Amino acid sequence: MSSSQKLLVIGGVAAGASCAARARRLCESAEILIVERGPDVSFANCGLPYFIGGEIGSRELLAVQTPASLKSLLNLDVRTRCEALRIDRAGKRVEIHDLESGLIEWRAYDKLLLAPGASPLRPDFPGIADERIFTLRNLQDMDRIVAASGSGKRAVVIGAGFIGLEMAEQLRRKGLSVRLVELQPQVLPQLDAAMAALLESELHRHEIAITLREGVARFEPRADSLRCHLTSGKHFDADLVVLSIGVKPDTELARAAGLKLGARGHIVVDEFQRTSDPDIYAAGDAVETLDRVTGDRTAVPLGGPANRQGRVAADHIFMPDKAKPYPGSLGTAIVRAFDVAAGITGWNEKRLIAAGRPYATVTVNDNQHASYYPGAKPLTLKIIWDPESGRLLGAQASGFEGIDKRLDVLATAITAGMSVEDLCHLEFAYAPPFGSAKDVINLAGFAACNRRDALVSHSTVLPDDPRVQVVDVRPKALAEAFPAPCKVINIPFPTLRANLNKLDRNRPVLTLCAFGKMSYFAARVLAQHGFTVSSFSGGLKANVDPRSPARMPAP
Amino acid sequence: MSSSQKLLVIGGVAAGASCAARARRLCESAEILIVERGPDVSFANCGLPYFIGGEIGSRELLAVQTPASLKSLLNLDVRTRCEALRIDRAGKRVEIHDLESGLIEWRAYDKLLLAPGASPLRPDFPGIADERIFTLRNLQDMDRIVAASGSGKRAVVIGAGFIGLEMAEQLRRKGLSVRLVELQPQVLPQLDAAMAALLESELHRHEIAITLREGVARFEPRADSLRCHLTSGKHFDADLVVLSIGVKPDTELARAAGLKLGARGHIVVDEFQRTSDPDIYAAGDAVETLDRVTGDRTAVPLGGPANRQGRVAADHIFMPDKAKPYPGSLGTAIVRAFDVAAGITGWNEKRLIAAGRPYATVTVNDNQHASYYPGAKPLTLKIIWDPESGRLLGAQASGFEGIDKRLDVLATAITAGMSVEDLCHLEFAYAPPFGSAKDVINLAGFAACNRRDALVSHSTVLPDDPRVQVVDVRPKALAEAFPAPCKVINIPFPTLRANLNKLDRNRPVLTLCAFGKMSYFAARVLAQHGFTVSSFSGGLKANVDPRSPARMPAP
Repeated sequence: MSSSQKLLVIGGVAAGASCAARARRLCESAEILIVERGPDVSFANCGLPYFIGGEIGSRELLAVQTPASLKSLLNLDVRTRCEALRIDRAGKRVEIHDLESGLIEWRAYDKLLLAPGASPLRPDFPGIADERIFTLRNLQDMDRIVAASGSGKRAVVIGAGFIGLEMAEQLRRKGLSVRLVELQPQVLPQLDAAMAALLESELHRHEIAITLREGVARFEPRADSLRCHLTSGKHFDADLVVLSIGVKPDTELARAAGLKLGARGHIVVDEFQRTSDPDIYAAGDAVETLDRVTGDRTAVPLGGPANRQGRVAADHIFMPDKAKPYPGSLGTAIVRAFDVAAGITGWNEKRLIAAGRPYATVTVNDNQHASYYPGAKPLTLKIIWDPESGRLLGAQASGFEGIDKRLDVLATAITAGMSVEDLCHLEFAYAPPFGSAKDVINLAGFAACNRRDALVSHSTVLPDDPRVQVVDVRPKALAEAFPAPCKVINIPFPTLRANLNKLDRNRPVLTLCAFGKMSYFAARVLAQHGFTVSSFSGGLKANVDPRSPARMPAP
Repeated sequence: MSSSQKLLVIGGVAAGASCAARARRLCESAEILIVERGPDVSFANCGLPYFIGGEIGSRELLAVQTPASLKSLLNLDVRTRCEALRIDRAGKRVEIHDLESGLIEWRAYDKLLLAPGASPLRPDFPGIADERIFTLRNLQDMDRIVAASGSGKRAVVIGAGFIGLEMAEQLRRKGLSVRLVELQPQVLPQLDAAMAALLESELHRHEIAITLREGVARFEPRADSLRCHLTSGKHFDADLVVLSIGVKPDTELARAAGLKLGARGHIVVDEFQRTSDPDIYAAGDAVETLDRVTGDRTAVPLGGPANRQGRVAADHIFMPDKAKPYPGSLGTAIVRAFDVAAGITGWNEKRLIAAGRPYATVTVNDNQHASYYPGAKPLTLKIIWDPESGRLLGAQASGFEGIDKRLDVLATAITAGMSVEDLCHLEFAYAPPFGSAKDVINLAGFAACNRRDALVSHSTVLPDDPRVQVVDVRPKALAEAFPAPCKVINIPFPTLRANLNKLDRNRPVLTLCAFGKMSYFAARVLAQHGFTVSSFSGGLKANVDPRSPARMPAP
């Protein structure tokens, strides 16, 4: 684009603001106009729940930029409360409706960026129009929820994904009684069920009621409450309801303009964020992008990708010879609820099963740093790989501290095309307050290689078959205080070699322990003594009770 | 090795214990003997300083395993207080001296692992034999330092590397007055000087006295102190002195046996940890390994590599067909002193200069997580790359939180052979408590690409040339309260476009600010208006004052 031309940006939050800012750094002389339907630009949308709960004390902190600050810092022309009505592609102009003045006018562009984002889903349930039903997209939604959510009130949060969990936590912190309703049989359905169990137990610990496998049937306004009727016939009375069941891309404008859309209505773009019209770019929650693991088309409505896509579009508009392609998204995401964090990068097991793709997986437990250093807390890490090549496909982590670190490293490893073997020798920054000489990521690599080298068979289910001898190798006191939920023979690991005669060599053995480490040691002993044995991978902690202790708690 | 054969391990701490434990999991029937000169095996040597300062409250926590526990868990035969005197390679036996009983006997091996470790350097300074001079290698050294280091005493720590810094911090925490003496012109010489500046200021803040560019000349015992005379003639009186000036590999046994040693006395091994004798392996601080960045031979005395090398040796001994090579070390390391952490992975700039290798570098600053979320704290990240290929060569980070995370990601990126361009689109786990939509690692990638794309010129020194116009683009109040250490023209960034006439287009400009972000923005504006301009990369924070604020502190 020549330096005196016009860039028009529709949508001024993450992708739009990033594109405009980068555009100005690349070109002082371009006319850059941002048109934003809402009253705010470039606000911190990921921070909204934290203001509702009071963790973020000042609303001003969330309004990162204003039209005036963008004018003075970047010489951008920002029009808030202005809606783009239609795109005239042939005439390279957009019809814009100023919602304040009522004025409607055409604005010309040389290049257009669409960054309309995505709207919270608000299905057509009977009673959905009730003003006590909220969704959360912008500062005004936030203000309304704040006004409605006094301490002691009853909130029902529908949808236990990332935003639903943040909302449930924050409303509970604020003193409301909170019920979380989720259609899937687990909270945080983006993760495999076992990896979300600690999060669920943390919500229970903070007295958030959880109703799983239930959807909304209808809402019934009553004298002093809004009654939420669920598909099973159950109902709950609420003072406010927060709907957080997903988003849909705001792509009516693009559709009306005849731009190519994907199967689920997202704008199709190339690696430089160009739509099917070479003068129109798109970025953020409204676009389809590439899955970085498989190369398939996908949509990832997250702030990081949105910001970086906006930047790629600006690069391609103003320096096409130097612009680097957007390489696709992994869907790396994390949520914190109270003391627990959980997250994912790449593919999960459920999705691989649904896609019919082959995979293998191990789950390991360790502390976030040296166990002898104060504050050591357990975390659980699950990795998934391609069984043929060993290449990583995804990872999930859950625990109290250091979850983001492990996800970030594994996102980097997946991006690099690393295999599970490569994880064994990643060399991390180690001192006792920060890690362990063998980090849990190294351990996951070791465990995966042990499996690939056929040193151990894994199981993640307790056997139905009564022929299987389940050997609990934990210390006797621990095995008695926190019993496994099945019939076991307790042979503490240090006594195993002396007690092989207690086991029948003609029947299979499953070894189990709290974390899956001693059971692996035991499986190695038994395998070498001629037993057919598998180890309960990830132990009781990853499969049965996410708070299963590895040793007796201090009295 | 056949299953009934003998593995003899010399040294039972990190590499030796790891090798023996892995060996047992691979082979139930082998005879495995560990010979350890000291009284303890498999103790937590990285935890020793933290016990001295009282952060770790129980000595038992550091004695991870005992001969009895290794016998019961792993059926290992562990002989502590036994010293290997010589190796008879032809006879495949080792002569062992039991330091308790005085008995000397030969023990046969089929495979031998040497894991002797490294000893703290204790140069032959006059007065070095004084019993108030300590080094720290094992639990007994630790006990002696604990006994000598009552609150109120005067400690001099010689050497400000990782261990020296940990010792200085811990002794100070315990209430001693502490002086740190370092031969180099900076603390933590493993980092480039500017990246160690925050650490140095944190030590000052905690009243640790620091003497740089000084070595020890001699020690003089006096009536109630040990006087440390330095090379400059200065002297300090101490109640105890801790020497932490490095280590040397304990390889006399290997040398006497005729094994091939490297230039600095380390045992030379191949990728499976085999020495020049195919039946003798070596691992840990005593060996040479490969530099993972360059492929050169190097020695990296760290716990992580030691543990993993021991494991590789066991794999190659017991399942040579499946063993994977040890891929080399990066030298990833971190230290915490009080509230500050700093660390490195890969090569630093000093080392690249000394080696005459071409490189480029940028330094960026940001908070560890969303700045609007409570607890945001600044961190500084420096990356170094090959200017031709863009491939990462090293990274350093310094700050308060999240330092380990960035180093771990960058260690993974370097291992993967990633370029600075790849950093732009790493997709991290983002929610406001954990990160930012654009993480500081992404920002480092952006900054590096901007440099490679010739969008900006960087400078890390303030100009001597009076022709250069230094433009401080910080807000006026900040520029006045925290002035740059040179003559500047203060033009706050939002007013820059309106004040271009204050600058002479015929003279070069250097833009500066606190963090290096606004100065980059300003450089882009000026460059496009025809100025010859460079930006002060990393800002005042990375180059002048590590605590330089980006905004006025609250009154």
